[in-house]
Formats: sequence, C-alpha cells, structure tokens
Amino acid sequence: MTEQDRTEPAEERGAPGQFVQSLARGLQVITAFDARHPRMTLSDVARRTGLTRATARRFLLTLEELGYVRTDGRLFELTPRVLRLGFSYLSALSLPALAGPHLEALSAQVEESTSASVLDGSDIVYVARVSTHRIMTVAIAVGTRFPAHATSMGRVLLAGLDAQRRAEYLRTARLERLTEHTLTDPAALEADLQRVRAQGWALVDQELEIGLRSVAAPVTDRTGRVVAAVNVSMRVGMPGASAGDPVRDVVPALLECARRISADLAATGR
Amino acid sequence: MTEQDRTEPAEERGAPGQFVQSLARGLQVITAFDARHPRMTLSDVARRTGLTRATARRFLLTLEELGYVRTDGRLFELTPRVLRLGFSYLSALSLPALAGPHLEALSAQVEESTSASVLDGSDIVYVARVSTHRIMTVAIAVGTRFPAHATSMGRVLLAGLDAQRRAEYLRTARLERLTEHTLTDPAALEADLQRVRAQGWALVDQELEIGLRSVAAPVTDRTGRVVAAVNVSMRVGMPGASAGDPVRDVVPALLECARRISADLAATGR
Repeated sequence: MTEQDRTEPAEERGAPGQFVQSLARGLQVITAFDARHPRMTLSDVARRTGLTRATARRFLLTLEELGYVRTDGRLFELTPRVLRLGFSYLSALSLPALAGPHLEALSAQVEESTSASVLDGSDIVYVARVSTHRIMTVAIAVGTRFPAHATSMGRVLLAGLDAQRRAEYLRTARLERLTEHTLTDPAALEADLQRVRAQGWALVDQELEIGLRSVAAPVTDRTGRVVAAVNVSMRVGMPGASAGDPVRDVVPALLECARRISADLAATGR
Repeated sequence: MTEQDRTEPAEERGAPGQFVQSLARGLQVITAFDARHPRMTLSDVARRTGLTRATARRFLLTLEELGYVRTDGRLFELTPRVLRLGFSYLSALSLPALAGPHLEALSAQVEESTSASVLDGSDIVYVARVSTHRIMTVAIAVGTRFPAHATSMGRVLLAGLDAQRRAEYLRTARLERLTEHTLTDPAALEADLQRVRAQGWALVDQELEIGLRSVAAPVTDRTGRVVAAVNVSMRVGMPGASAGDPVRDVVPALLECARRISADLAATGR
C-alpha cells in the first residue's frame, strides 16, 4: 500500500480519519537524529528509519527546504529551527512560565534543585528545572526523559491516572531495574501508587540512581485532574545536602509550591 | 495542484527532490499552537494554517494517532511528545551538554547569568542557560528566541557569517527598534559587525531591553567556523550587579570560557 492509497481518497473526498503517512515518516526522520547520530548520510537515515533511500531523500530535501535540516551535500543534520516544534508545546503549555517563579522560591527555601515534569507514555519529561549551584548538581535540561516508575514525579503522575489508564500502564510498561532499590513488580508498584494517591505526595529513594532521593507532589488543573508534578531532589549522604529528614523538612514546602502552581493554572482557565 | 500531484510521481519513480507537501503542512499544524493558542478547535487550526477543515482534520487525527496531539473531541492540544522533536536537535547538537559545565563555572566566577545560543535565520535561539538566583533574574528557557541584531550573541553570530550570508541578512532582516539604543541602520550594524569580528567579542548595551547589558564571544568548530555564542548578561545600575567595568571584569573570563567550549567541541570531532 503506497502513501497515496491512504491519503488521496481523503484529499479528494474531504473524508476525516485518513492517516497521513508522509507526516508520520517526516517526523520519524527528525527523531532519527540523536546524540549518537547527530550527522547522517542518506543511507544512515534510510537504515535508521526503515525507509527506502529514495523516500528518505525526499523527506530530507523537504526538511531542508523548510529549514529544519541542513546538509553539506553528503551529511545531513538538524538545524535549530527544530526547536520551534518543541517550543510550540512548551509555550502552549504555559506550565513552565507559571511554575518557574514558584520552583525558584522553593529551591531557595529548601536549598535543593526543583523541577516540573509531565507524563509522556511511560516516561516523565522535564518541562522546567531550577538547579542549585552545588558541585554535585546534575545537569538536567528541559526535555530530558526518565522512566516514570523509578521517579517520584512519575509515581505522582501515574497515581493521578484514572483506573483504566493506570491498569494499562501496569500491564504494558517495561519496569526496568535501574538500581537495586527499583520497584519492578507491577503489584508492588500499584500498591505504592495507591499509597501515593492517598497521601498526596511521593518519596522515591535511590530507585533511579544510587545517591539520589526525591519527593514529588501533583499539580492539578481546575477540575482536579493531575496534569504535572513538581519535585525536590536531594543527594543522600552528602555533607549538608540532605542531613535532615526530607519528609519533615521538604514535603510541606513542596506541597505548598504545588498548590500555588495549581492555583495559578486554574486562574489562567486551564 | 494537489498534494498527490507533487508526491506521487516521486514515490513511484523514486526520483529525488520532490517536495513532500504533507510534511510541510503537518509541521505547520504543530507550530500553529502557541502561548495564545494552546487549545484549538478544528476551525481554529484550519484558520491559522490556511488549510481546509477536511485537510486540517486529517493532519490533527494523524498527529493524534502518533501521540503528538490529544483532543477531548472538540479542542485539540499538543502533548509532551512534541518535545522529542526539539530534543532530537538538542541531543544531536551536543553543545548544551559540552557547554553546561563551562557556563556554570563562568557564572560562578563572574556571579552573573550565562547562556549559549545559535543562529536560526535572523533570530538567536538559546540552547543552554545558567541563571543566578538574584531577584531580578529573567527566566529564559532553552528554545527562547530574540532578534539577533539587538543581542550580543547575535552580533557575534552575525559577525561569524561569511560575507555573502551576512550581506543577505543585512539586506533582508527586519531591524526592529526595541529600545532607544537599538542599532537599526544596516550600515551602522555592518560597521559594528566588522568591529566585533576584529576584536573577537561583542558588547551590547540596552539595545534589547533597558537595564540589560551583555557581552558575548564566539564558539568555533575545529575548522574555525563560528557555530555558537556564549554570553554574560548583566543588569545596569543595580547595586552590586554591574558596578564594575564589564569589559575589564568579565570579558577575559568569557573569552576563556568560549575557548574551552570550542576546544571540547573540536575534541569531539565537530
């Protein structure tokens, strides 16, 4: 079945629901570029996307004409224009702009790094981040992903799903063991999600990375639906870093921060 | 001319160089969402993109099936999956990861916010940012754009263009007056770019915003081509903020930072 078999009838009849294969392929070409494949030949792109060379070439040259790709004739690479696509989302989300000042205040108060993230499939994706300038600070940029099951923000976001979507997640997600502490049993994870849902926040202790502990709380829209999570991440066993009890020292400030961001979101009509 | 007129022959013959209209339209639908249009009806999307309702619907439903858009049946919005597209670029760029530690060190040394950016048409786009936690800190996220002509990083990036591309920029760019200090005359701007090129760094004083002063230096690849710029931005007339002479106090550290990032880039073979 060619692309035209799928798209032409819709184009002619104006019928809804016809999948546009060309768009799917074009987006696939963009996401084929990454840290290990920053510059690729036509053959590389064809191999990584499963497209024929002729088809890959059409998509690359179209992306070049649109300014999203550039080439020296042999190697292709993405241009900064691609950031416009992700930025459409961030700018439409309004969450980074709303959350920023509250995360800054929280970070200053607890003297630890703070972040906001949303759920994308089985990953969390950072949409805002305020890092302290301590030597051990991990550089985490907006757009970074982590598996939801092993992070405090992921637990809060998964706990906020309705029963059907949560069950689907537990049935299908790959619960990778990232440290010796990672919860990888769906039943144990579901029990923790119910606990998180009841108490209104999550603590995850060294399940993503040894030495890293994090608490998270949900951000809700005006209907009470969980739309994002905010967290405070702490180093374990570092002098001065997390000497106290995170639950006593950090959770009240974190919950207040989440409440304020939720109120701001509601005030914007979201 | 319909989409199929343009794409089918290429699909059949495997001929190169055929523009894929569907991909262009799909990307146009993604970028139609922004801070003022975070959720749109089908009619809104059709109006903002100039597509027919039937065509807009096909693209929205395709983006929904691919997970880039979600809908409640009436309103459409982007999902965090869209960040994967921009993140493909950032991750392929390697610059944010390389520059981060150097920008952190520079920010700690001069006690001011530091950034890295690249040129996209007549805009600069932030790809990394380290902000100080002073009250007046402006929140600038990765992906933010500013007009190149009014910023120190823009001057450095424009000065790094070859003569032909610089002339084309000066002929076509809209040199908007953003403050009373903004250079808006192409000849005056070209004279400044030649000065920047000769001295190896740029100072821009309140041309983007009153109260904001910034110095920038170029980051080069192993062939000596300017690929990015780094800057230090300072508040003017704030107690303690910029009491000294930026040229004497900041430029040497900035140049050293740019040199180190360039060396790291060269070491990665870029």
